[in-house]
Amino acid sequence: MTFELKILGSASATPTVGRHPTAQVLTVGAQHYLIDCGEGTQWQMLEYRVRPHHLRAIFISHLHGDHYFGLFGLLGTMHLQGRTQPLCIIGPPGLDEVLVTQSRVSGVQIGFQLEFTVVDTEVHALVYEDAGLRVHSLPMRHRVPCAGYLFEEQPRRANLLKEKLPAGLTPGQLARLAQGDDLPADEHQPGLRHADVAGPVPIPRRYAFFSDTLYTPALAPLIAGADLLYHEATFLDELRERAAQTHHSTARQAALLAQAAGVKQLLLGHFSSRYKALEPLLHEARPVFPNTALAVEGLVVSL
Amino acid sequence: MTFELKILGSASATPTVGRHPTAQVLTVGAQHYLIDCGEGTQWQMLEYRVRPHHLRAIFISHLHGDHYFGLFGLLGTMHLQGRTQPLCIIGPPGLDEVLVTQSRVSGVQIGFQLEFTVVDTEVHALVYEDAGLRVHSLPMRHRVPCAGYLFEEQPRRANLLKEKLPAGLTPGQLARLAQGDDLPADEHQPGLRHADVAGPVPIPRRYAFFSDTLYTPALAPLIAGADLLYHEATFLDELRERAAQTHHSTARQAALLAQAAGVKQLLLGHFSSRYKALEPLLHEARPVFPNTALAVEGLVVSL
Repeated sequence: MTFELKILGSASATPTVGRHPTAQVLTVGAQHYLIDCGEGTQWQMLEYRVRPHHLRAIFISHLHGDHYFGLFGLLGTMHLQGRTQPLCIIGPPGLDEVLVTQSRVSGVQIGFQLEFTVVDTEVHALVYEDAGLRVHSLPMRHRVPCAGYLFEEQPRRANLLKEKLPAGLTPGQLARLAQGDDLPADEHQPGLRHADVAGPVPIPRRYAFFSDTLYTPALAPLIAGADLLYHEATFLDELRERAAQTHHSTARQAALLAQAAGVKQLLLGHFSSRYKALEPLLHEARPVFPNTALAVEGLVVSL
Repeated sequence: MTFELKILGSASATPTVGRHPTAQVLTVGAQHYLIDCGEGTQWQMLEYRVRPHHLRAIFISHLHGDHYFGLFGLLGTMHLQGRTQPLCIIGPPGLDEVLVTQSRVSGVQIGFQLEFTVVDTEVHALVYEDAGLRVHSLPMRHRVPCAGYLFEEQPRRANLLKEKLPAGLTPGQLARLAQGDDLPADEHQPGLRHADVAGPVPIPRRYAFFSDTLYTPALAPLIAGADLLYHEATFLDELRERAAQTHHSTARQAALLAQAAGVKQLLLGHFSSRYKALEPLLHEARPVFPNTALAVEGLVVSL
């Protein structure tokens, strides 16, 4: 099953030619999940062929404009496109009030249901779950209430191993085995244990999204061993004082957190507009955590 | 004095690759005035070198997202850039409430004053005035309250004609003449009438912005003889039924209104995403009103 991240925006708050504010799409099976939605995200979705119709939920980290000002336009477009299926919106307190106020004063009623989940940004808790995915909040430390998110696929059953399956099984028996059941012995054949004909149980894939935050090593245990970590790296470490003042992180700090958490791969993003070239951020992180890449527009990471 | 219109967006509501929602900048002298502010306007301002710092006022026609969803981000950027001077925002009822709600729930306080003027979209009335410009509302007919705007420069004095000025005038006397005063006779010289040494009084330049609207010929007298008319032309005339249903206009209707008003020049804009090529709209309008152009991104019209 697909478990894939696509980057739509790499910039921080100051508009920069050729960069776009934070937006990412996680695809799990046939469902899209949007993570933050800076201004212009719907054009980035057009550009990178992410169909709004397949969006199941939108996660907003915090109410700084570069993380959610594209939400209004995207919802309007989905309305124009005739969407009827409900959409989950998960975010910090107040987001629902902004959307409801805007809808009321503009006289534009969205033609599908918005199901809000208000996130307590101080705690690590389950905030969303469906058949394919469950998501926990990660308490970021920023200037306003801010949540990161840990996306984890639901446990999958082990696949049956063809070479271990005896001949002559009926379709019904195969289906029972595929569902994880054992076949009891009967007059026709001996029993068959699922565990004897199945491969190992896949480890659920996990993606950790660290939105705007002070470097917070205490969060590492919450994402230990994750397949992928996105961590903001607004500044180079020479500006770590500025990072601390503005509640942001440096590329080196992102790498230290990736190392401490023992994740498999690190993406850096949310780059300050002062960095015309981004390689120095990468060169700063890699000595600490080698498997690091830049989360630039169009990057796709399949897990 | 500069009186110049720059187009930043030509699209209607459906996002279209390579087109941007409605936004225009009118420059009068050293001041910029933004007219509508669809999502992404601040990137278009970057692209076409319109400095937010020089914005004196923002006029919003109505609360459909493709006309104002860029406002939040633009205000945030001006705040980040350290703006302190007040900004006038002129628009329909409710816009102030959306902005105030958003500021409150996000915890982001804009560091400069927003001076709201709520426009009664049913009447033709003065809604803004400064030393260089006055602006009247134009009652559009759309699905939600919607205003067009008529921008008119303040009356200018006639320029002095060098060839008519007698020799020997003091700087003080020249300054009085330049201000429009007559010089009284005294013991040293006969009097001098301003009218005898000045050229003709310039006719104030006028730009009429017709935002989303049903074809409304009754509005023509309000903009009679204007130097420039922008009129939405969402559809070709073969779709005039669809235009009427959605409270929009066709290219031919825009041209008919330009003709009825006797304006000097017409711009068509707000194109439906169904028109990949825009020439058919132009070809439809020109037989009715020859001096017609397409209001595409980057177009500059100096009056």
